[in-house]
Amino acid sequence: MKKAVILLSGGMDSAVTLFLARKRGYKVYCLIFDYGQRHKKEIGFAKRLAKSDYFVLKIKLPWKNSALLDRKIKVPENRKSSGVPVTYVAARNTVFISFALSFAEAIGAKAIFIGANARDFSGYPDCRPLYFKKFNELVKKATRSRGIKIETPLLYKTKKEIVSIGKKLGVPFELTWSCYKGDRKPCLRCDACRLRAKGFKL
Amino acid sequence: MKKAVILLSGGMDSAVTLFLARKRGYKVYCLIFDYGQRHKKEIGFAKRLAKSDYFVLKIKLPWKNSALLDRKIKVPENRKSSGVPVTYVAARNTVFISFALSFAEAIGAKAIFIGANARDFSGYPDCRPLYFKKFNELVKKATRSRGIKIETPLLYKTKKEIVSIGKKLGVPFELTWSCYKGDRKPCLRCDACRLRAKGFKL
Repeated sequence: MKKAVILLSGGMDSAVTLFLARKRGYKVYCLIFDYGQRHKKEIGFAKRLAKSDYFVLKIKLPWKNSALLDRKIKVPENRKSSGVPVTYVAARNTVFISFALSFAEAIGAKAIFIGANARDFSGYPDCRPLYFKKFNELVKKATRSRGIKIETPLLYKTKKEIVSIGKKLGVPFELTWSCYKGDRKPCLRCDACRLRAKGFKL
Repeated sequence: MKKAVILLSGGMDSAVTLFLARKRGYKVYCLIFDYGQRHKKEIGFAKRLAKSDYFVLKIKLPWKNSALLDRKIKVPENRKSSGVPVTYVAARNTVFISFALSFAEAIGAKAIFIGANARDFSGYPDCRPLYFKKFNELVKKATRSRGIKIETPLLYKTKKEIVSIGKKLGVPFELTWSCYKGDRKPCLRCDACRLRAKGFKL
């Protein structure tokens, strides 16, 4: 059975990606990061989604220059500007994919799935199509194994399309968590909450 | 003062790279990894070389498919074959550089120095020139900041040349550690010891 590493955050996009990978016949190995995120709560959601097919990796980004790493920086609410927001974590996806690449090579997986989206998204540089194109070019030169590829099945989908795909696949959206604040209830005002809401709006 | 992140292992190549970066006028920020390596001993050497300009990051590569991570796999001695050796750690440099990229962006550094060498080397895929070329292309798309670059000043040097550069820069080679085994004394038979010896041979 072909293997895939899935980067799983516990949010709706990575949940749909996980179900898509299973649907495509992969034996999945989910990688969940405990990286000091404010919304650590997502880790529990990710674990439940993955059932037993996961690894939790604890890493530290001690430089903390992000609202997701430093509670002294406020998570923006109802953001209007189009720049990269303060929730951006420097090179986070590059770090995550690098670990996924190491894991994939170690277990002989040829696919790394990430639920990145470049339509209804916050403008993070490491979610854009050209970023993944360049990373796939790097992957070809980076390892002993050949043929490993980063798969981004949701890259060009809208949030509405992602929800629709998820519903067809039976994704339990109630077991996903998006809010950056990670409080008891979603704040409904941060980027993550608002993008999520777009997916479910009629 | 311009800043640089230096990937520092405690070996001779990264030591020379550190001194080169200082010589080029950078304020240096060394990144030292505690990644479960067999020769953990190198960390102490790296710290002494860096003086106070360092961060030690503890990371885990739980898949352990390398002689450097798993003590049950023997470190090859007097290796003759030309393939990638069992000391290869899957995607290790990709993981290291990713953290360095995150760090560089967070502190506003524009250079990441790595002492990789593709002449007198063990044949690791993530030490080859094309790998770094591709990584630099990725870096341009990966972050919010512009102009960050991976610098590999020793990439095309022989070990003899590296020693000669280091001597001119005053590198205290007695404070560097190469042996993969990390015992009390260097084994003189692993790749790291033999490549080191090449540098000092008359």
